[in-house]
Amino acid sequence: MDIERIEKQINFCKEIDKEKFIKRQTLLTDKKTYENDSEHAWHMAIMCLILSEYSNENIDLVKTISMILIHDIVEIDAGDTYAYDEAAAINQHIREKKAAQRIFGLLPVDQKNKFISLWNEFEEGKTNEAKFAHTLDNFQPCMLNNETDGRKWKENKVRLSQILNRNKLTAEGSADLWKYQLDNFIMPNVESEKIIDDIECQS
Amino acid sequence: MDIERIEKQINFCKEIDKEKFIKRQTLLTDKKTYENDSEHAWHMAIMCLILSEYSNENIDLVKTISMILIHDIVEIDAGDTYAYDEAAAINQHIREKKAAQRIFGLLPVDQKNKFISLWNEFEEGKTNEAKFAHTLDNFQPCMLNNETDGRKWKENKVRLSQILNRNKLTAEGSADLWKYQLDNFIMPNVESEKIIDDIECQS
Repeated sequence: MDIERIEKQINFCKEIDKEKFIKRQTLLTDKKTYENDSEHAWHMAIMCLILSEYSNENIDLVKTISMILIHDIVEIDAGDTYAYDEAAAINQHIREKKAAQRIFGLLPVDQKNKFISLWNEFEEGKTNEAKFAHTLDNFQPCMLNNETDGRKWKENKVRLSQILNRNKLTAEGSADLWKYQLDNFIMPNVESEKIIDDIECQS
Repeated sequence: MDIERIEKQINFCKEIDKEKFIKRQTLLTDKKTYENDSEHAWHMAIMCLILSEYSNENIDLVKTISMILIHDIVEIDAGDTYAYDEAAAINQHIREKKAAQRIFGLLPVDQKNKFISLWNEFEEGKTNEAKFAHTLDNFQPCMLNNETDGRKWKENKVRLSQILNRNKLTAEGSADLWKYQLDNFIMPNVESEKIIDDIECQS
């Protein structure tokens, strides 16, 4: 056993415990607790196992799940940026890139390179695996927002156009899941006015 | 899209949100928050990606990570049984088997069978994947107990013999990780008397 190597790996494993303290803007189904990033990643990873049959293209499951598990680790340093906070989004990528260097940099260099490359692939969203991971990254909080009576949409005065813009690539990972999400999680909340309908002639 | 099928899958995905409320007896690194089952599973899954090179035998990563992600879902109904609570352990397996039937039974029958079989494989602990998953299931809380100054061991008056008994199969998944765990997480806490040394001539 290479002691220097395993020490680096264990230091990384200890460091990522901090992801459990990064709160998101999504309510859990008790309707009062805010989800944290590690819970979100765990939920998405299981949903990937259950729902991968709806991916538009064949995907490598290990790669997709690895991407999902680590996609928010950068928020340990960079914090969670709310989907509809346009001001915070401006320098989000710069903050996150720096965080990726520091946090994945705790690992031995071969694993550092592997995980930074995986995180970049997710961020770029071009491969089949990255597209499907992004689909779930949009689908999962939308499912929870719907389960919690659309309260966060209402409180944040979220408009339908913002949601559609946020989800403009969701169908690229899975046309089926996007259709399900739109019909079952989004449109019922437009009808009940939890989401502001700012698009005319929405059918 | 088969609506009946996807409805079952989404119902399962909603149901497992409850795992985020199942508290464990492990403190997080802030030394005051108790870990929940979903955080534990997420942490183990990433540790599997980072540490699988130490598995005694080659393992299928998708299978091992799937097992890790779902291994505590039964606790939604059956609750968390503390590692050193001998009274609760008596009917633990019966409670958990019933929970597996109900919760995985929300899925379409092919996925229900697949996940119950995966959960049984973990419980039986005989395959290479199940052995390595068990190694991480012991290693991860031990790492956090050590990071939080052994407080939970001290509070619960845990004895070294109990820890060694609990970990009697940890080396079967990874001799290297067991050695690391014993040398770095367990023995220093015996020396500092956070763990009661009830074994004579421990070297």
